[in-house]
Amino acid sequence: MKYVRFRDPAGAIRRGEYDDGHVHFANESYSLEDEAIDVLPPSESSKVVCIGRNYADHADEMGSDVPDRPLLFLKPPNTLASHGDTVTVPAGKERIDHEAELGVVIGEQCRHVPEADAMDVVEGFTCVNDVSNRDDQRQEQNWVRGKAFDGAAPIGPVLATPDEVPEDAAVRSRVNGELKQDGSRTQLIFSIPELIAEITTYMTLEPGDVIATGTPEGVGPLEDGDEVEIEVEGVGTLEHSVRVP
Amino acid sequence: MKYVRFRDPAGAIRRGEYDDGHVHFANESYSLEDEAIDVLPPSESSKVVCIGRNYADHADEMGSDVPDRPLLFLKPPNTLASHGDTVTVPAGKERIDHEAELGVVIGEQCRHVPEADAMDVVEGFTCVNDVSNRDDQRQEQNWVRGKAFDGAAPIGPVLATPDEVPEDAAVRSRVNGELKQDGSRTQLIFSIPELIAEITTYMTLEPGDVIATGTPEGVGPLEDGDEVEIEVEGVGTLEHSVRVP
Repeated sequence: MKYVRFRDPAGAIRRGEYDDGHVHFANESYSLEDEAIDVLPPSESSKVVCIGRNYADHADEMGSDVPDRPLLFLKPPNTLASHGDTVTVPAGKERIDHEAELGVVIGEQCRHVPEADAMDVVEGFTCVNDVSNRDDQRQEQNWVRGKAFDGAAPIGPVLATPDEVPEDAAVRSRVNGELKQDGSRTQLIFSIPELIAEITTYMTLEPGDVIATGTPEGVGPLEDGDEVEIEVEGVGTLEHSVRVP
Repeated sequence: MKYVRFRDPAGAIRRGEYDDGHVHFANESYSLEDEAIDVLPPSESSKVVCIGRNYADHADEMGSDVPDRPLLFLKPPNTLASHGDTVTVPAGKERIDHEAELGVVIGEQCRHVPEADAMDVVEGFTCVNDVSNRDDQRQEQNWVRGKAFDGAAPIGPVLATPDEVPEDAAVRSRVNGELKQDGSRTQLIFSIPELIAEITTYMTLEPGDVIATGTPEGVGPLEDGDEVEIEVEGVGTLEHSVRVP
């Protein structure tokens, strides 16, 4: 199953079934591009837990070693942006990058989840762009200015149940139609169950929380007016544009 | 004015006026120690934005330099704990520390707030313990295991409007009745308006969000069964106990 969360023309927030570019709720159907609806992030998240350097080729392009345990960082709710949004990035920065990621949407409140049971707490998968302000990321102890600015987590539009998404799902980004990243879920250094087990050793995950599982090689700069696509095979494609103020 | 948020005996969440150990809502009054009520954090926070090394004497005791701009890190909602709670810290760590802090509770949604207007977005002040897991903090790029574990932000119980809190308010901690930290708001390297201006350059703050303004010297280890008090002069005293599993 695939779902899209949206605000309908009457202002009510709905989660409809999704197929072939359309979302269905009760007797109504809308195209995702229909201006009468607002596509929303696929869940209400109290936090997005992000993983750094979880693809060896990306760690390498950043001049970093592969970590010996998951590198964690946080994106709070102010970072969420939706399919179709224009993301206004922080002003006056030299380098703001896209990072295509497979997002894991949590389905139930959980803590101390063993790896063997981890997929039981997963509601589904979505697309995330881990938009990254390198100017500040390079200077900070904690990546807050670098990773937690408003709009730094475009997400969605589709939440696909795990059975929809192949084990070797491609994770891609395109900027203005040009392919920039083309990785695979098989390249994850720490698997989704390993990530859930490690995170929940320390933190409770809530329904709707998201784990952004890291990005493959090919990250690159975003400029004013760029049109970004983040594709996860079996899920769909997230589209947003970029504004540099 | 002073306020305490609590769940009343019928299960309703109330914010009552506070004086002299008692909270008043409509025709009812309760002692904060009344077992018929549950004292809650003073606000619903989508995030706690924390400041590291904002007292020179604490930076010095940690062997760190004073930063040239605020050192930011994040505590998500899973970190919140209340007055009277027992905080269960992560298992198997050598060193979990208390850090007494003045908390700033935001009163309105805001972004790009100039220093001169910053106090207009402040609803009031509260007490925060920035509980810190040094084992992991020392090893991590981002302080997630170190600072964002469940219960790492005991907060409250009182929200005091800014007029209640002197410019030179003391910020103190006691463990099992023994004074451990005894700083003053006058020692903040980056003032509250400077912090609000810097944070809102990057992030929207929401009503109920909290800025934890940093800790003075005297941080130290917590052990199983410890009783912790965090006092901010003009606000009151937050009490919680510690469980090491």
